[in-house]
Amino acid sequence: MLLNKDQILQQASRYRATLINSLAGYKSAVLIGTKSTDGINNLAIFNSLIHIGANPPMYGMLFRPDTVERHTLRNILDSGYYTLNYPKADDYRKTHQTSAKYAAHQSEFKECGFNAIYLETHPAPFVEEAIVHVGMKFIEKIDIPVNGTILLIGSIEFIHLPDSIVKQDGFVALHEGEILACSGLDAYYKTNFIERLSYAKPDTELTTLSIES
Amino acid sequence: MLLNKDQILQQASRYRATLINSLAGYKSAVLIGTKSTDGINNLAIFNSLIHIGANPPMYGMLFRPDTVERHTLRNILDSGYYTLNYPKADDYRKTHQTSAKYAAHQSEFKECGFNAIYLETHPAPFVEEAIVHVGMKFIEKIDIPVNGTILLIGSIEFIHLPDSIVKQDGFVALHEGEILACSGLDAYYKTNFIERLSYAKPDTELTTLSIES
Repeated sequence: MLLNKDQILQQASRYRATLINSLAGYKSAVLIGTKSTDGINNLAIFNSLIHIGANPPMYGMLFRPDTVERHTLRNILDSGYYTLNYPKADDYRKTHQTSAKYAAHQSEFKECGFNAIYLETHPAPFVEEAIVHVGMKFIEKIDIPVNGTILLIGSIEFIHLPDSIVKQDGFVALHEGEILACSGLDAYYKTNFIERLSYAKPDTELTTLSIES
Repeated sequence: MLLNKDQILQQASRYRATLINSLAGYKSAVLIGTKSTDGINNLAIFNSLIHIGANPPMYGMLFRPDTVERHTLRNILDSGYYTLNYPKADDYRKTHQTSAKYAAHQSEFKECGFNAIYLETHPAPFVEEAIVHVGMKFIEKIDIPVNGTILLIGSIEFIHLPDSIVKQDGFVALHEGEILACSGLDAYYKTNFIERLSYAKPDTELTTLSIES
């Protein structure tokens, strides 16, 4: 199949959204926890987590301000804090359910069957059932002029995850935690680890990196 | 394991990079094809593809200007065009090898064993062996002040992929194309499809979406 830009633009809006979102590739399904100024714990699924830098450690996320995600964005800008929670693959239905448009006074934690917990002194709520917890602090909001989306950048304040999935060189074996992957807006995956490969150099054979702890 | 920001910053640089990169989650391994002003076909693996918008269709990618990726960035800014190529999981070794620092006069296509082909009138080269081909045109470069990384945004000019993996509603079943996934800088995955779920609404049971063609 070959579709050019005009043909893509002629498709119905929902077809185009499904096509372009799913074609953007595999992602992690990440649950973002925030707290509103009214004290309501908010939880929403995002698939746009992106590595910004390791020193200092920072991640980015993309927001479309005209969607249900606005609760999350407003809470982050109001409070300055949020959490990243990586659910187990088996929790994919509860994770997907967080994308429903609940009223502002409802908490997706309760409505979708997740427990809200607090870690360290972090002001935003975490998902107890998640395998990986990352406490985030808002740094910067970058407007993307071409279509009004927003890249939100935060610093990693702390990470909390099972010892067993962190390897000697710092590698986090997400598959050993059976962490959920996704594509597009509604497709969920488990993963099969192939292997880790050595640092690539010209004219040098690649070798397998061990992931023994 | 609980690591706070200070403890992360105290780690050796390579440990920290491995930790923060792999913790950023599952991604697609995408090969970016470009052509230099000298006519050399360049190919590089990226794992930072991000959906920016569907109308018009746009994707973003993150660049760190101080790395090997600079050939790709310079070629895109010089020529205005690039390609996205989604390799098969079985080609993960050749895909990883494109991250080696080849000299400017060398082509990663040849050095890593991929064939360069041209599609439509697109000026940048595609990977013949890839399952999905996306022709991209440069739109905008956004500097991220906090650490000097660059978000590069491009428009989708056309897409080329097997009919069989595009479903009735526009969903692209990447797993049916056996497309490669990755995490961090060196870990590769196949995926196991669980299912697609219906649009989530409060107090409404989720149902399975068919992916019959």
